[in-house]
Amino acid sequence: MPSLLSSRIRNAEFAKKIVTDPAKLVPYFKNGDYVGWSGFTGVGYPKMIPNALARHVEENNLQGKLRFKLFVGASGGADTECKWAELNMIERRCPHQVGKPISKGINSGRIQFFDKHLSMFPQDLLYGYYTRNRESNTIDTAIIEATAITEDGGIVPGASVGASPELMQLAEKIIIEVNTAIPSFEGLHDIVEIPNPPHRTPININRVDDRIGKPYIKVDPKKVIGIVEADYGDITCANSPQDETSQAIAGHLVDFFHHEVSVGRLPKNLHPLQSGIGNIANAIIGGLAHSPFKDLEVWTEVLQDTFLPLFDSEKLRFATATSTRFSPQGFEKFYSNYDYYKERILLRPQVISNHPEIIRRLGCIAMNTPVEADIYAHANSTNVLGSRMLNGLGGSADFLRNAKLSIMHTPSVRPSKKDPTGITCIVPMATHVDQTEHDLDILVTEQGLADLRGLSPTERAREVIDKCAHPDYKPLLREYFDIAENYCLARGAGHEPHILANAFKMQLNLLEKGTMKIDHW
Amino acid sequence: MPSLLSSRIRNAEFAKKIVTDPAKLVPYFKNGDYVGWSGFTGVGYPKMIPNALARHVEENNLQGKLRFKLFVGASGGADTECKWAELNMIERRCPHQVGKPISKGINSGRIQFFDKHLSMFPQDLLYGYYTRNRESNTIDTAIIEATAITEDGGIVPGASVGASPELMQLAEKIIIEVNTAIPSFEGLHDIVEIPNPPHRTPININRVDDRIGKPYIKVDPKKVIGIVEADYGDITCANSPQDETSQAIAGHLVDFFHHEVSVGRLPKNLHPLQSGIGNIANAIIGGLAHSPFKDLEVWTEVLQDTFLPLFDSEKLRFATATSTRFSPQGFEKFYSNYDYYKERILLRPQVISNHPEIIRRLGCIAMNTPVEADIYAHANSTNVLGSRMLNGLGGSADFLRNAKLSIMHTPSVRPSKKDPTGITCIVPMATHVDQTEHDLDILVTEQGLADLRGLSPTERAREVIDKCAHPDYKPLLREYFDIAENYCLARGAGHEPHILANAFKMQLNLLEKGTMKIDHW
Repeated sequence: MPSLLSSRIRNAEFAKKIVTDPAKLVPYFKNGDYVGWSGFTGVGYPKMIPNALARHVEENNLQGKLRFKLFVGASGGADTECKWAELNMIERRCPHQVGKPISKGINSGRIQFFDKHLSMFPQDLLYGYYTRNRESNTIDTAIIEATAITEDGGIVPGASVGASPELMQLAEKIIIEVNTAIPSFEGLHDIVEIPNPPHRTPININRVDDRIGKPYIKVDPKKVIGIVEADYGDITCANSPQDETSQAIAGHLVDFFHHEVSVGRLPKNLHPLQSGIGNIANAIIGGLAHSPFKDLEVWTEVLQDTFLPLFDSEKLRFATATSTRFSPQGFEKFYSNYDYYKERILLRPQVISNHPEIIRRLGCIAMNTPVEADIYAHANSTNVLGSRMLNGLGGSADFLRNAKLSIMHTPSVRPSKKDPTGITCIVPMATHVDQTEHDLDILVTEQGLADLRGLSPTERAREVIDKCAHPDYKPLLREYFDIAENYCLARGAGHEPHILANAFKMQLNLLEKGTMKIDHW
Repeated sequence: MPSLLSSRIRNAEFAKKIVTDPAKLVPYFKNGDYVGWSGFTGVGYPKMIPNALARHVEENNLQGKLRFKLFVGASGGADTECKWAELNMIERRCPHQVGKPISKGINSGRIQFFDKHLSMFPQDLLYGYYTRNRESNTIDTAIIEATAITEDGGIVPGASVGASPELMQLAEKIIIEVNTAIPSFEGLHDIVEIPNPPHRTPININRVDDRIGKPYIKVDPKKVIGIVEADYGDITCANSPQDETSQAIAGHLVDFFHHEVSVGRLPKNLHPLQSGIGNIANAIIGGLAHSPFKDLEVWTEVLQDTFLPLFDSEKLRFATATSTRFSPQGFEKFYSNYDYYKERILLRPQVISNHPEIIRRLGCIAMNTPVEADIYAHANSTNVLGSRMLNGLGGSADFLRNAKLSIMHTPSVRPSKKDPTGITCIVPMATHVDQTEHDLDILVTEQGLADLRGLSPTERAREVIDKCAHPDYKPLLREYFDIAENYCLARGAGHEPHILANAFKMQLNLLEKGTMKIDHW
């Protein structure tokens, strides 16, 4: 047994299960199997077995003949999952994914995909909702990355927890990949499993740093059919850089937080922050590092690079999430000062990190980016032009529905192929609704911030157009609203004015002419 | 002091505040005031003061000159609130309403209305979101119906709790209407107030009958400017009768529950039930009374008449809600056997009855009726043809988002003015989305039941059209889906196929030609 690996497996029964060549486990997999992976936002995912299976398919021309129903807490590894998609190895997938070959497979109808609130996916899995065509409520195999196995057989995850506890609970067979290319993450996790109703009790977390579970996942060793060594770390990419737009958005939000503190609606250290992925989220967290706010706390889904300088500035007291999705540089920084960060970071199962119970209790401030938002504050988080799946819902609605302050931030425009401002992100009607008008408090673009709390739909529309729309689209949006209001008031339907025949005219114009700038309504 | 009233007011300090003529309190109200009423779904609402104010407006021709921002947990009394709307006394209203004059005021732009999740309305009120244009986070006056005042000055509500605790907490002035025309409801309530973050802790309710609070609302007597006697009970109307359609829907659902129990996904006594308002909800609860299920429990928002025979059948163990909205006959039955029902019913603040924390913990079975649902399982609960407000969101999304089983039931068609099946409730795309595709497990019409758990959007569309659509519309919906799928697959956007130019063609046809039966796509 390799010495590095042996130092990580401290339980003799588990140590006996080491398999030196991952290819030896390939025969355990059959076409049509229900397979679970650890992983969340591209970290903590299994590497060796998925690669071995891909090689097996490639070498034996099994493309389309060895396909799996693949369950991962959110997105798996970009390298492994994209390879599976390219080799047509994914028959069914939920609840989230990242990677062009995967979304291509979904949008070509080859992969049956559905997105689901990330807090609900593991519980619906346990309820048997996703295995209802099987005889028993199990999945065939779970492949789980670990960074250590404790004396009493506890599985210590890597950079994410996600749905690993539930996947292992449901699995008939489990394969563990112990990753020796990265440090052990022991002590960084707080694992708890929530029983099904009617056996649930309150989740006793009242502060972001409360621990209620164990630092590892307990697993029935009889189910473990093999343990392999993983010899490379999570492959992630660099973060998209902040630009003027994202910095302007961050500026508006920091100003707004100041105002809320000044009128007593937020405490001086704000409330626990949830922040999505991307350059706007990065700019906001970066903006906070240069603000006077201190003793900040984070209750979120994913920690990105920018949280590390916020820790360094000593403005961030504690952060908890289900995943630390750092860039290669971010991981380097994280590992180089691991002892410091370890005391200030806790990783939890996604069923906890995204749980409405905790998000509402803590009064989180939720911030996410939509594909488009409409003048009445419905937002599309998933399907471009109503149909083309990007990545999926993720935890956006878990947070936006339950937060004390629900914020969506977006550039007011994006470039189309033929027009640098060809796409307005503020539209008359969203072509797909993931967040409803009942869920958003604040909408912000680089143009300004619309405070929608307590406003009627018509008041909201005026505020959104006035504050958030790009000058190229402001007159068009105002005109739509005016025409719609007159038309709807005339027929006694003026609560939320729309002209259904024209509601998607801008989006149709984009499809047909490459820009959302229409000539007339 | 009248003897009946004196027997209900057991605290001397409060007894001193009795005002014999409600009109004497009218001068406390000014144009533009923020006013809160008790009440939820038309029961437990204040009667004397709203009527006195209406008379004052009528007699002094103050229509449009004495207008209020009116906050009620859900809907107030149909009699009083409609009168206020007719007299143009409502400037602003949230989060729910029932009554033609009110919706007319909203849809004509005279009343600024917004609907909000009923679990969030009281907390957003406390956060100061709805009073952010005032200097202090208060409302001017709360008018609260009580059925008793205890020795230590606790206010015992009537047939609903709703948002009364929060409205009284925020009010500068409070008027209490002690209703002596109905029995005292003392002991029927469990009142708890949830502090704002960061001071929240778990809500320690693990079973439908857990009590965690007091049987009354504590109030600062200094804020009470008057106590009047209310001399008539809640004015409610009869329930709409069950018909073949609602009974067929109930039949499909009871069959489905049997199936879920048989495969072990539900326990034999199901899980706590939430049921909306209307004849389908009535038929389902009626259907359960004739089923073999027993030891049933109810965790819901509103108890309707049909729960009473379910109690009588001894199949219902316990029911909790924020309102008992019975018909006149229902109240008669309720009062005639009050001692029996009282041991089995508990009324809670809406912030508790609708709280995601409890709904998810208990694993409720949520059942609600939409305006329309689309083939991908988005549902419109509020705005007819995207614009005309009916009543508001209510608690539908509180329950459907968090339940273990999220069910929407609807007739497959409704009559239009010129076609008995002129409106299909299953449409290509909902004109307004309150419940997203990520929130619904089951869609059921009299035609059949679509089980959507774990299905991709295209699988869902086939299932919904096949099981739920009316035969008059099934071919049209299939054709839309087929055309949309081909079109979207061709442009690499086949996840959730839509043709935006035609997505609302059926609804536009209804507006123009009085039926949703289009000639062609």
